[in-house]
Amino acid sequence: MRVIWPGKTHNRALGELVKGYLDKINHMASCELVVSREAKGISEKNAQRIKAIEAEEIEKHLSNDYRICLDDTGKEMGSNEFARFLEKIGMSSARAATFIVGGYLGLEDRLLEGADLRLSLSKMTFSHELTRVLLCEQIYRSLTIIKGKSYAK
Amino acid sequence: MRVIWPGKTHNRALGELVKGYLDKINHMASCELVVSREAKGISEKNAQRIKAIEAEEIEKHLSNDYRICLDDTGKEMGSNEFARFLEKIGMSSARAATFIVGGYLGLEDRLLEGADLRLSLSKMTFSHELTRVLLCEQIYRSLTIIKGKSYAK
Repeated sequence: MRVIWPGKTHNRALGELVKGYLDKINHMASCELVVSREAKGISEKNAQRIKAIEAEEIEKHLSNDYRICLDDTGKEMGSNEFARFLEKIGMSSARAATFIVGGYLGLEDRLLEGADLRLSLSKMTFSHELTRVLLCEQIYRSLTIIKGKSYAK
Repeated sequence: MRVIWPGKTHNRALGELVKGYLDKINHMASCELVVSREAKGISEKNAQRIKAIEAEEIEKHLSNDYRICLDDTGKEMGSNEFARFLEKIGMSSARAATFIVGGYLGLEDRLLEGADLRLSLSKMTFSHELTRVLLCEQIYRSLTIIKGKSYAK
């Protein structure tokens, strides 16, 4: 399993939480964090340009992955359903499951369209760095569900 | 506006984030955090007992509030819809809006049944301390939407 997003997590507390959940995840399964290059020095007015660059940088890390793009308008699942889903792709797919989270402007349409699954964590929009935390917490929670372990608070 | 939950936030990073969002919220609106007493020294096997005690402690702080209980099975809203909702109760209701978040076992049924609104932040279950962060982030985001300010990252 992999998670990939552009640029490091700038908020210290959110970065600490991501690291904490990834550590817990890696006690139960293998999950690699890939930090792709973020587009820098481009005005936010050129949103499409920024998203295009960041999509290209993300794609450099992808090959035959099962691509799960996080997207507000994607499919919502409950935690148990998400756990069953993770279990299923872990067992049935020869391809590594890769979760792709956009930068502060979101993911480019082309990446979204090429996704095997567009996943929404909530109808609400959360900041992209908080979304990283939510994703990692939910992967960790899923593994505790799959393996029947208790969730370490 | 108020947010209320039992016991302090034990995870340091999550506690820091709650404080950070509340500070930002209080630059735009008044939002008080009330930490009610948590049930201590009772085995998790007595879940009903713990939830009953924590509900009583929460109720001590409530009077004629507009009660919004966080509940996985409650109503989901997008961020814009949530902002409109907050704006509406802020303008139309003489009662203070109070968000109630349960402890690690959730809220007692009686509190949920007495709610003016049961709000779900996601179909997924997140830890109760992470839920506190999500709620505060979303209140902050709503205020930036209502007031037309840019979201400070």
